[in-house]
Amino acid sequence: MTEPYKRVALIGLGLIASSMFWAMRRAGMAAEVTGYARSAATRDTARRIGLCDRVCDSVEEAVQGADLIVLAVPVGAMGAVAEAIAPHLAPGATVIDVGSVKRAVVEAVGPHLPEGVHFVPCHPMAGTEHSGPESGFATLFDNRWCLIVPGDAAEGAVGRVEAYWRALGANCERMDVEHHDLVCAVVSHIPHLIAYTMVGVADDLRRVSDQEVIKFSAAGFRDFTRIAASDPTMWRDVFLNNKDATLEILGRFTEELFALQRAIRTGDGEQLHAYFTRTRAIRRGILEAGQDTDKPDFGRVKVDR
Amino acid sequence: MTEPYKRVALIGLGLIASSMFWAMRRAGMAAEVTGYARSAATRDTARRIGLCDRVCDSVEEAVQGADLIVLAVPVGAMGAVAEAIAPHLAPGATVIDVGSVKRAVVEAVGPHLPEGVHFVPCHPMAGTEHSGPESGFATLFDNRWCLIVPGDAAEGAVGRVEAYWRALGANCERMDVEHHDLVCAVVSHIPHLIAYTMVGVADDLRRVSDQEVIKFSAAGFRDFTRIAASDPTMWRDVFLNNKDATLEILGRFTEELFALQRAIRTGDGEQLHAYFTRTRAIRRGILEAGQDTDKPDFGRVKVDR
Repeated sequence: MTEPYKRVALIGLGLIASSMFWAMRRAGMAAEVTGYARSAATRDTARRIGLCDRVCDSVEEAVQGADLIVLAVPVGAMGAVAEAIAPHLAPGATVIDVGSVKRAVVEAVGPHLPEGVHFVPCHPMAGTEHSGPESGFATLFDNRWCLIVPGDAAEGAVGRVEAYWRALGANCERMDVEHHDLVCAVVSHIPHLIAYTMVGVADDLRRVSDQEVIKFSAAGFRDFTRIAASDPTMWRDVFLNNKDATLEILGRFTEELFALQRAIRTGDGEQLHAYFTRTRAIRRGILEAGQDTDKPDFGRVKVDR
Repeated sequence: MTEPYKRVALIGLGLIASSMFWAMRRAGMAAEVTGYARSAATRDTARRIGLCDRVCDSVEEAVQGADLIVLAVPVGAMGAVAEAIAPHLAPGATVIDVGSVKRAVVEAVGPHLPEGVHFVPCHPMAGTEHSGPESGFATLFDNRWCLIVPGDAAEGAVGRVEAYWRALGANCERMDVEHHDLVCAVVSHIPHLIAYTMVGVADDLRRVSDQEVIKFSAAGFRDFTRIAASDPTMWRDVFLNNKDATLEILGRFTEELFALQRAIRTGDGEQLHAYFTRTRAIRRGILEAGQDTDKPDFGRVKVDR
């Protein structure tokens, strides 16, 4: 039985931090939760909707006395936040982050933290296309995975962090930092980049007016627009901070795309058919693993005979 | 007030044709509906689930006496079907197709049809990732667009076809054949090709095991797998038959992708942020046009504080 945290500080009050707060409430955790956001408007919103027991006007105040500090800011801001809070961290406290890349965060945050403070990098693989303090909800982490990159953190501290995420509804899996960044490039970063690109192309095409692109989007395009509506700052930082894995997977992607382009140009129907058949199997796997709904069109259509 | 059809023949009994049948029933249309599918197994399934008033064992029998004939087979099979049914079409009958490309269908079908038979190419922009006679449902076309490419078809025949689609729940818009193929390349064909490619890349990566790709798919990847689970034969035929527009938009896509790749490589955060901000506006347009749900994650997550 691991000891629950008594005071949790949420630094950054966007979709992830606010969902963590509501999930902690749902789990009946007794911890007092402080919160801080750089923007005064965000702090005001948080106070208005009852997000956190206490919203602080400085990050130093927010972390004072906390035994769990959650860095929930864009990846590019992690280092500066770590530097600012370092002198105010209690010995024995645990710092976690929720960034989508890990190598860059480990390098940016680790050196600032004083001896005796545990650093356990985390990546809850959950989110929606919405952002900001009002977009959070208690069930965001249910049945989603939280990747933990323990590095050389003490086993006791890591176990306690895992117990915390499980109480929020998530499943935990430990991973090596390089492997984490590669897996996430495949399942998340490149899909986002591609979606952004596709939507950008449609936006650029003056021969196909915006109106048409929007009207007829249900034919496939609209799924890309949801992903491409994600937070720009968060995603800019992801790509700048996972450059190597992103460029590697992107290289693989364009290689495959060129092969299919060539099959289209030469009229190689057999190759296209074989390729399109193979990809169906992965979908089946995802459904069997309970990671998506089998309802047609994600359940957006009302199926009724 | 246009005259309703008295006998409708559905050639091909997949997702679209079966949805048309259930939508006709829902609309209370009196027409007798015959059906034909090349595969005996599909015909058996259709009979078992009550799809069509009469399932015929030959395409000739199915079209006999019909005043509306619906070609709902893959684009590559349209020409052969048109050739087979041509001698059996009643003068004054109307032939429509539901293919996703139009130039190739017009060229493949048009020359076979006898004088006095109207040909009104149609493209109902509706579907799901499921296929086959059991995947259809009455509400598939509700609030979706059906593109009509009338060419030189008689106005009376075109108006009648439009009234028919509206009765099934769809909105209609007329379009020139070349413009149709370009718009669809943007909103549908290239998004599908890209989704297939992304899923193929993930499948190929042996360092990232299938299991991981599946487990962690909720981070963005799973949306691509839904699209990439669409019918392989249908999509092979789309790409083989909309080669020019597909290759043109694909060229635009790789051009943009390379620009973003370069921004990542050189660390140009400003360019990335500006790009990712611009694409949010299109999403807003789609939501305002009622073409998608604003619920986070397409409503897959249960939002609950």
